[in-house]
Amino acid sequence: MFDHRKYRPFPAIQLQDRTWPDKQITTAPDWCSVDLRDGNQALINPMSVEKKTGLFQLLVKLGFKEIEVGFPAASLPDYEFMRKLIDEALIPDDVTIQVLVQAREELIKRTFESLRGAKRAVVHVYNSTSTVQREQVFGLDCDGITAIAVQGAKWLKEYAAQHPNTEWTFQYSPESFTGTEIDYAIEVCDAVIDVWQPQNGQQVVINLPSTVEMSTPNIFADQVEYFCRNLKGRQHVRICLHTHNDRGCAVAAAELGVMAGADRVEGTLMGNGERTGNMDIITMGMNLYSQGVDPKLDFSNIPEIIATVEHCNELPVPARHPWAGELVYTAFSGSHQDAIRKSMAYHADRQLPHWEVAYLPIDPMDIGREYDAVVRINSQSGKGGVALVLERDYNIELPKWMHIELSKVVQKATEQTGQEITPAAIKTLYDESFVNVEQPWVVSGYNIHTDADRVTALVRTADAAFEGQGAGAIEALCAALSKAHQCEIKVQHFDEYALGEGTTAQARACVALDVDGEHCCAVAVASDTSAAPLQAILSAFSRSQISAQAAAA
Amino acid sequence: MFDHRKYRPFPAIQLQDRTWPDKQITTAPDWCSVDLRDGNQALINPMSVEKKTGLFQLLVKLGFKEIEVGFPAASLPDYEFMRKLIDEALIPDDVTIQVLVQAREELIKRTFESLRGAKRAVVHVYNSTSTVQREQVFGLDCDGITAIAVQGAKWLKEYAAQHPNTEWTFQYSPESFTGTEIDYAIEVCDAVIDVWQPQNGQQVVINLPSTVEMSTPNIFADQVEYFCRNLKGRQHVRICLHTHNDRGCAVAAAELGVMAGADRVEGTLMGNGERTGNMDIITMGMNLYSQGVDPKLDFSNIPEIIATVEHCNELPVPARHPWAGELVYTAFSGSHQDAIRKSMAYHADRQLPHWEVAYLPIDPMDIGREYDAVVRINSQSGKGGVALVLERDYNIELPKWMHIELSKVVQKATEQTGQEITPAAIKTLYDESFVNVEQPWVVSGYNIHTDADRVTALVRTADAAFEGQGAGAIEALCAALSKAHQCEIKVQHFDEYALGEGTTAQARACVALDVDGEHCCAVAVASDTSAAPLQAILSAFSRSQISAQAAAA
Repeated sequence: MFDHRKYRPFPAIQLQDRTWPDKQITTAPDWCSVDLRDGNQALINPMSVEKKTGLFQLLVKLGFKEIEVGFPAASLPDYEFMRKLIDEALIPDDVTIQVLVQAREELIKRTFESLRGAKRAVVHVYNSTSTVQREQVFGLDCDGITAIAVQGAKWLKEYAAQHPNTEWTFQYSPESFTGTEIDYAIEVCDAVIDVWQPQNGQQVVINLPSTVEMSTPNIFADQVEYFCRNLKGRQHVRICLHTHNDRGCAVAAAELGVMAGADRVEGTLMGNGERTGNMDIITMGMNLYSQGVDPKLDFSNIPEIIATVEHCNELPVPARHPWAGELVYTAFSGSHQDAIRKSMAYHADRQLPHWEVAYLPIDPMDIGREYDAVVRINSQSGKGGVALVLERDYNIELPKWMHIELSKVVQKATEQTGQEITPAAIKTLYDESFVNVEQPWVVSGYNIHTDADRVTALVRTADAAFEGQGAGAIEALCAALSKAHQCEIKVQHFDEYALGEGTTAQARACVALDVDGEHCCAVAVASDTSAAPLQAILSAFSRSQISAQAAAA
Repeated sequence: MFDHRKYRPFPAIQLQDRTWPDKQITTAPDWCSVDLRDGNQALINPMSVEKKTGLFQLLVKLGFKEIEVGFPAASLPDYEFMRKLIDEALIPDDVTIQVLVQAREELIKRTFESLRGAKRAVVHVYNSTSTVQREQVFGLDCDGITAIAVQGAKWLKEYAAQHPNTEWTFQYSPESFTGTEIDYAIEVCDAVIDVWQPQNGQQVVINLPSTVEMSTPNIFADQVEYFCRNLKGRQHVRICLHTHNDRGCAVAAAELGVMAGADRVEGTLMGNGERTGNMDIITMGMNLYSQGVDPKLDFSNIPEIIATVEHCNELPVPARHPWAGELVYTAFSGSHQDAIRKSMAYHADRQLPHWEVAYLPIDPMDIGREYDAVVRINSQSGKGGVALVLERDYNIELPKWMHIELSKVVQKATEQTGQEITPAAIKTLYDESFVNVEQPWVVSGYNIHTDADRVTALVRTADAAFEGQGAGAIEALCAALSKAHQCEIKVQHFDEYALGEGTTAQARACVALDVDGEHCCAVAVASDTSAAPLQAILSAFSRSQISAQAAAA
């Protein structure tokens, strides 16, 4: 039953003097990928060792220095993958692997066994601390839960001492931190830190999981700021965030949490993970990148990342996924296309040092995307987009009034089909509507000469010859056609330009005529600048004749 | 080239005395769906009039009171859809339609024409105000841009006056608000409000679009709070937000923006819209719902919403989409499954008034989902999940030690295939491993009687008869088997319970034996509580004999 009264508001933290809203992130946090652990345990079909190896190698290539690779005590494939990484020496010197384990001795023992021979590792121990978990799942009070955490911390210390050839880092998570009373979360973490005594040189990470996202991200940031201020051992530990996306705000929570004092962020590529997923490191990293902050990860080949992630997770990356989705740099709407076209031309002309293009927060080329997809055409598109596609894909530049003519034809077609139209289909519409319209009106020869201040033009086709006079060749040909066909012709638009440089360059002429009140346009390309406009006029005139015949029939 | 130095940080607002971080949202904002406009213009294949009609009817059913239905002056299908809504009287009395238009007279004129006969409508006029758009796209200074806005506002007033039978609301957007200097955004909006003079009874909406999301959501909230404080006409207007998801924070920005003073929020179902999409109203609405705030929209049938949205947009709703995706209430991991099982049982036992279940932020039944998907089994799952599936789908309750036995069998199978396993396949594994193991050891008859304080059991099968003594029937049968087969038998576990009530109820017995050091388990169901344990022991014993034969061979 849909009834909001079954739920209660999340209690806010009392933190009137918060400082995080005045902070800006100027350096990237330490990243830890949990794709191979939290990501993997949320898949319909968990990854094979082969897939895990491929994803691990991608993570290394992207520049991750800390990678949680599994939960080796709970899963045989995770254990085997762990051994493969170590036995086959697949872990680069500057990469630290991390493994998760519950605060239970037999699991901790097996975890350390799985890591034998590792040069360095983070052992990440956790237990659930939230009110709900304490009461409903464990049936323990705070002291009982703290005892589990403290005992887990002691076991880590003991087993680490038994394996002195590995450089150990300890990490503790009060799992379901967001559902834990903040003062108790601090108490249990301080109890764990007391066991580990990080001032003696032992590195320690305290991870604050938003295991289930429960509040607006500002409240999470308040929790983090309060936690950082009040943790006794603060100066000896790295504070880490691990947010989930239940309310769609995992990235916002991590960003505000870093502003609130966190040093390190756990997440996954494309936000794979339990339920709605983990924080997407690509989104947060690209958010930093787009603000001029070095993300310290290399996202220059997003298509490769997508291919690997889709292969490993067997889940598609959505078309609207921030920074990465198929459609996120695409404009279908006319006004957006027009602004992008003008803005990119403005940039290209001025060689501006910073990217500031309307509707494109970054240059898609930075991450391995082409400009092809920036403008795609359907019935919502306008003249600017259609023009851009012809220029971009066919190097055909048309005058503004021709953009309008062509976009009418394209819009009519797309409104009829209701579908997107490809650049090739636009080119075909352009050719059929404006270029290939000359039959049988093909210029086979001409003679243009001046006689006093008048120009005489004689234009021959296979079937006929037209001769007329005017102030120029165009006027002369129109006069000849007008006389031969008993009609009134006005030139509404005329544009011609050379294709390429030099005196022998081809030329393209675009003409709009008014023939007895009817509007006709055509485009002609010819080997010289005199022939092109003559052909364009004959072609445009041919269209009026076809219309007239159709009207008469 | 991947180089963050091409980008610049977003400038923060100077707002030291912000109040929004201490606010909580206690009532839903006014919602305006822009699915049919902003959503539609971002689709590969825009919606047909038929699809638009279906989506409009869904939006009405969900409870939207304001719906932006199109851009009728820019698109013939939008115009036709507008006419259909009015001519066929499809707009309920309590629903107001809204249309978008640029600040150009011919478009405004045609927009009012498209609305003839409407009872009520919001006409939403916009022009771009950002620095980038002013300089690069329009080539105008602030005064030039303000003049466009003011002229647009005047035309709205003029044309509205010419159509007095409709109740008009005016809305203005300084498009690309987030990229506009905040003081200039206030200036242009105040200039528009000056034209409209809302104190004279004319309703006015000022919409602040995060056309491209450019900053962390707290900065957007600062922009909104600053805007609301400094807008001269604040008390006469509804402030509306329209956020996009370029940085993955559209929902966070809208939530923080409402805390900062906004009254109304535009967005779409599942966040369809330009590039990364618009703010997802389902996510924001369900975020409120899950905190005990009435969203004033009815999301009780999410499967129906998904079906309609996928049909209209031709884009799948991702499996991890907040509140709605296929996987967002699913746990594969053993520890999560165990906690969910315990937590739900705790709730059911105590009939708790508020929902607080580990890992499930809401009851999936609220929105039309079943519990089937909450626990799904693969190699990451544990005994709790497997037990829950058998109970839920087959009403088979097993003792704890049998959970462990069964989950070993299931985990082995899932580690071998690497795939998820269905409940039916789990049931088959259970039957094959523990239940259908009696042949040829089927109890055909028995005689159990006491003799002084000893029990004598005689058990017959088709091929044999076993007689022994003990403190009870089980001990007696074990003694008989032990003697007949020259082996040592210990009972490690024994559980039996009636299936249903009454003296004639069937019984299920679960037995674990140690036969010469070998561990064997079996389950038997029989028509009386004496037969079931005898059969379970014979079945378990039969497994030890099969193993012994296999070892000898």
